[in-house]
Amino acid sequence: MTHLQIIIAEAALELIPKQIRKHPSIIKYAKKRGKNPKEILLDASYHHHAMKKLEEKWKRGRPDITHITLLHILGTPANLEGYIQTYVHTINDKVIYINPQTRLPRNYLRFTGLIEQLFIKGQVPPKTEKPLLKIQKQTLEQLLNKIKPTKTIILTTNGQKYTPWKIAKILANEQKPALIIGGFPHGTFKQQNLKLADIKATIYPKPLETWTVTALIIHAYEKEMKIYEKAWKKPQNFQLNSQV
Amino acid sequence: MTHLQIIIAEAALELIPKQIRKHPSIIKYAKKRGKNPKEILLDASYHHHAMKKLEEKWKRGRPDITHITLLHILGTPANLEGYIQTYVHTINDKVIYINPQTRLPRNYLRFTGLIEQLFIKGQVPPKTEKPLLKIQKQTLEQLLNKIKPTKTIILTTNGQKYTPWKIAKILANEQKPALIIGGFPHGTFKQQNLKLADIKATIYPKPLETWTVTALIIHAYEKEMKIYEKAWKKPQNFQLNSQV
Repeated sequence: MTHLQIIIAEAALELIPKQIRKHPSIIKYAKKRGKNPKEILLDASYHHHAMKKLEEKWKRGRPDITHITLLHILGTPANLEGYIQTYVHTINDKVIYINPQTRLPRNYLRFTGLIEQLFIKGQVPPKTEKPLLKIQKQTLEQLLNKIKPTKTIILTTNGQKYTPWKIAKILANEQKPALIIGGFPHGTFKQQNLKLADIKATIYPKPLETWTVTALIIHAYEKEMKIYEKAWKKPQNFQLNSQV
Repeated sequence: MTHLQIIIAEAALELIPKQIRKHPSIIKYAKKRGKNPKEILLDASYHHHAMKKLEEKWKRGRPDITHITLLHILGTPANLEGYIQTYVHTINDKVIYINPQTRLPRNYLRFTGLIEQLFIKGQVPPKTEKPLLKIQKQTLEQLLNKIKPTKTIILTTNGQKYTPWKIAKILANEQKPALIIGGFPHGTFKQQNLKLADIKATIYPKPLETWTVTALIIHAYEKEMKIYEKAWKKPQNFQLNSQV
């Protein structure tokens, strides 16, 4: 069976970087949360002012994008039935490996707390041999070299026109297809990442949210793979998700 | 053109109810936020303990469900191209009318702050003749009497089996179809609401998240309506969303 590899790439997910940790607004925010600034996720909603001097600031500090997109991916029938493996590659070249059975917190602050723990400890839960989330230093190229997809499609605003259903058909006909979706709010992929894909596809004339494109490709893929029809034929066992 | 009416129904969205406003944990939480308990949204993430005595507590206090689902609906090409009208009917029979061009806050705390303002002032922004969001006392039955859909489909865990694509086909063939999706985490619709629909449909043998079912029906509907193909043929104008 094909196993779709979904990579949220260059995700706007990082701890507060060194150069702004001493900014007065960051110190104040960290104090309120009772944490050290280096243990807190950068969040444009709260650190907008301090972020002014950061390079490529328009692509950074949006943990909500990864949160909502992951909630969507992990809750799809395609994932529940075991057809998807998900990774988050961050803007600073770290990769989060996600156990498909992970049940992420729905609440945003609990999610950010969890990701902070992940960045600091390297895995969640911290002491187990089979973590639900683990993170390591890795570029997108290194990740793809490890996955070895049979075909890689990247969704970008400057690619070739495709319908979501055409993309789904290509993915469904591959043994190990990879789909790369940007996890940042504005701008485009870095050139070295864009060139890693076999197909650069654009599905709509205007930019869409990460969670929207992800959902629509997954659902089109579900149709191609007849996932609903197969699910109804399976004996229904009670499935326990692993809550983190 | 058909205009899909989407109703998130019995949504777990309400201000902290009277009977628990004096609970010590609520008073403490309200103090921290510098607000009166009656001006704060009930949120199971923070008010779990105080909610123990509430009726049907498993269906209440989940603003995140409405938040994520609305972000998804409003960002779909179907909505951006003007095919969707969205409503949120709450568990206490209030209805929120949503201007399709509304750009909701991505950040959860900003979203809850906005909805608190909406519950208190009746509309957002508070002083304008064309609000982006307005709320009024209304049952689901009254809302449907006002919309007058040509066909109403409710998605439930105990309905008749349908594929998402069959539902999309039915919706696309109606002049003014309505789709009702539960905005609560567990349990089922009230009997008086369930009976309002022409079709009670179940699309998957296990419960799915509200945002997942919403996304998959909308994307199937987009396929039926050839929304992507049409969008590429349109001259591309810069479209300004209305941020709230």
